[in-house]
Amino acid sequence: MTDFPFEIAATDGQARTGVLKTTRGEIRTPAFMPVGTAATVKALYMDQVRDAGSDIILGNTYHLMLRPGAERVKRLGGLHAFSGWSGPMLTDSGGFQVWSLANLRKLTEDGVTFQSHVDGSSHALTPERSIEIQADLLGSDIVMQLDECTPFPCPKDAARESMELSLRWGKRSKTAFGERDSQTLFGIVQGSVFEDLRRESAERLVETGFGGYAIGGLAVGEGFETMCEVLDFTTPLLPADRPRYLMGVGKPVDLVEAIARGVDMFDCVLPTRSGRHGQAWTDEGPINLKNARFAEDQSPLNEHINCPASRDYSKAYIHHLIRCGEYLGSMLLSWHNIAYYQDLMARMRAAIANGTFEGFRKDFRSGLRES
Amino acid sequence: MTDFPFEIAATDGQARTGVLKTTRGEIRTPAFMPVGTAATVKALYMDQVRDAGSDIILGNTYHLMLRPGAERVKRLGGLHAFSGWSGPMLTDSGGFQVWSLANLRKLTEDGVTFQSHVDGSSHALTPERSIEIQADLLGSDIVMQLDECTPFPCPKDAARESMELSLRWGKRSKTAFGERDSQTLFGIVQGSVFEDLRRESAERLVETGFGGYAIGGLAVGEGFETMCEVLDFTTPLLPADRPRYLMGVGKPVDLVEAIARGVDMFDCVLPTRSGRHGQAWTDEGPINLKNARFAEDQSPLNEHINCPASRDYSKAYIHHLIRCGEYLGSMLLSWHNIAYYQDLMARMRAAIANGTFEGFRKDFRSGLRES
Repeated sequence: MTDFPFEIAATDGQARTGVLKTTRGEIRTPAFMPVGTAATVKALYMDQVRDAGSDIILGNTYHLMLRPGAERVKRLGGLHAFSGWSGPMLTDSGGFQVWSLANLRKLTEDGVTFQSHVDGSSHALTPERSIEIQADLLGSDIVMQLDECTPFPCPKDAARESMELSLRWGKRSKTAFGERDSQTLFGIVQGSVFEDLRRESAERLVETGFGGYAIGGLAVGEGFETMCEVLDFTTPLLPADRPRYLMGVGKPVDLVEAIARGVDMFDCVLPTRSGRHGQAWTDEGPINLKNARFAEDQSPLNEHINCPASRDYSKAYIHHLIRCGEYLGSMLLSWHNIAYYQDLMARMRAAIANGTFEGFRKDFRSGLRES
Repeated sequence: MTDFPFEIAATDGQARTGVLKTTRGEIRTPAFMPVGTAATVKALYMDQVRDAGSDIILGNTYHLMLRPGAERVKRLGGLHAFSGWSGPMLTDSGGFQVWSLANLRKLTEDGVTFQSHVDGSSHALTPERSIEIQADLLGSDIVMQLDECTPFPCPKDAARESMELSLRWGKRSKTAFGERDSQTLFGIVQGSVFEDLRRESAERLVETGFGGYAIGGLAVGEGFETMCEVLDFTTPLLPADRPRYLMGVGKPVDLVEAIARGVDMFDCVLPTRSGRHGQAWTDEGPINLKNARFAEDQSPLNEHINCPASRDYSKAYIHHLIRCGEYLGSMLLSWHNIAYYQDLMARMRAAIANGTFEGFRKDFRSGLRES
């Protein structure tokens, strides 16, 4: 196992900023990873993703194993060459998407079998197969163990059973991963909202030993306050010298509060998905560009963000494009939202480095519109 | 009326190459104008349109008068500022799109009334209103007269009536246009497939006097051979010292054959529309990237075209994107197709300048796949 060097340059309360040094490049933390589900960050060119300030993107094992197929990606040179993203890449295990298939999947101790949402064909995913797909075929830099995402709400007995299955899959993942240069494996803490389960999950994962630790099973319906409470007791359980990754989160305010609790990495489809649906993110919250009040608003989305989509197009023009269902509307809003997220991360990294993060957090919270 | 300077640098047979000098920039002819229907060339950024070699784009009066509304475009600074295209722009009169509405429109001597395809609201378009929209509100550089597009096939009596209505509308358009600095007005030759009608239309238009002459009523179902025959007798009727614009055409082979007959300007939605539907244009004809034979084809669409979409992405990747319905697939194919069209135009301009156009034309025709 290669543990990528993780240098924490500054801390401010529980928040920390630093650099995770992968073979393919440095990741400034806290880091937001745009989601490149099917080997593309939807509606963006990869140079836009990078120039917006992204150091790493996420690829989805589930989608890629179905289309174009993991073996095919390998034959085409791996996911980096195939997608045109040369920087670091993290792949998920496929577990979360399969879990989302509900009654199209079947779980056993060995793994999970499921039917493709594309053509109904049958597939299997085991901890070993997920490692093979991610590490050998797609060739990602940061590989995630296969886990079961515990639903919310969940009785404690079931949450324990699920957490223990994820721990056993984590061990099998580590064995399958073996020794690798220039790739690392992250374990995933489960345990729903129960502190003792989260503690046991974290301790036993650390015993196994991973290059980084993810917090799974959040952002699945528990709500903002509960998520913060779970983070309150979960991040301190994770090794301070290893990156902490909160999976599938979230809104800007979620990032601010998770960073305040010591999280280093995030991924979420929200900036691109909401962009395709006409929403732009601002420090006041999301605005819907379809709204008639933008029809003659000549101001840009955000003149302070160094991104053409944020700076060089009027809200009136984007309003028109979204109203007409034009590609360019989705393209510009997705681009702006990724740039907004990365600008927010940069501001938070700077605040942590300057020891002013608490003030930033307070200002950010008070600047949000009531919603 | 400003007649933009039109300098013909070379001729080769009927084909000619030169420069049309508008106030907003030079248009190298023969020129292909990408269609920017709703103030956007679908799925492209304007700098991609320009860098692909486009000197001028076309805007659609019909679409813009409905959304966002011509008066609104004016308040937002005109179509150039609104859309972010600073080069020359030609607008159509709206007549063709209204004509396409079939039984949602009603034609009188005065003009045409129609119901919006967006919300069913009632609108009117007269020669005078079309000029006002194009020249005063949108602020286009090249304004088209309102005409009636004669259907195909069409009995000669009806074709004459329609052609004469277009002539009367042409005169009213010129009166409404009046004297303008830095904008010009083009007339439109009609007359279906009838040589004597086309002759009369051309002669009477020239009598009225326009800054350029368009050939309308083609590419409406008459077929390639008939279109060529109509061009054979129509382009010689048009003044040699003024630009000739074949409206709504076409496939690459249509451009080659129309240029061989002395046409200088074209517009067509085909490159962007076919791109959105998975087609890429090549010198052999269109290829469908959905086809399974491209699944592991690592070659680019065309390494000789100086466009990232043509040069830097594998067919396998684009195949995958199109199969998945990803935005980027449509974005890349639309971009490539515009670059392909502009590269083809550049090769034809060079061949005309070098006196080798006949050879180019023959090679191009023989290089096409049987279809």
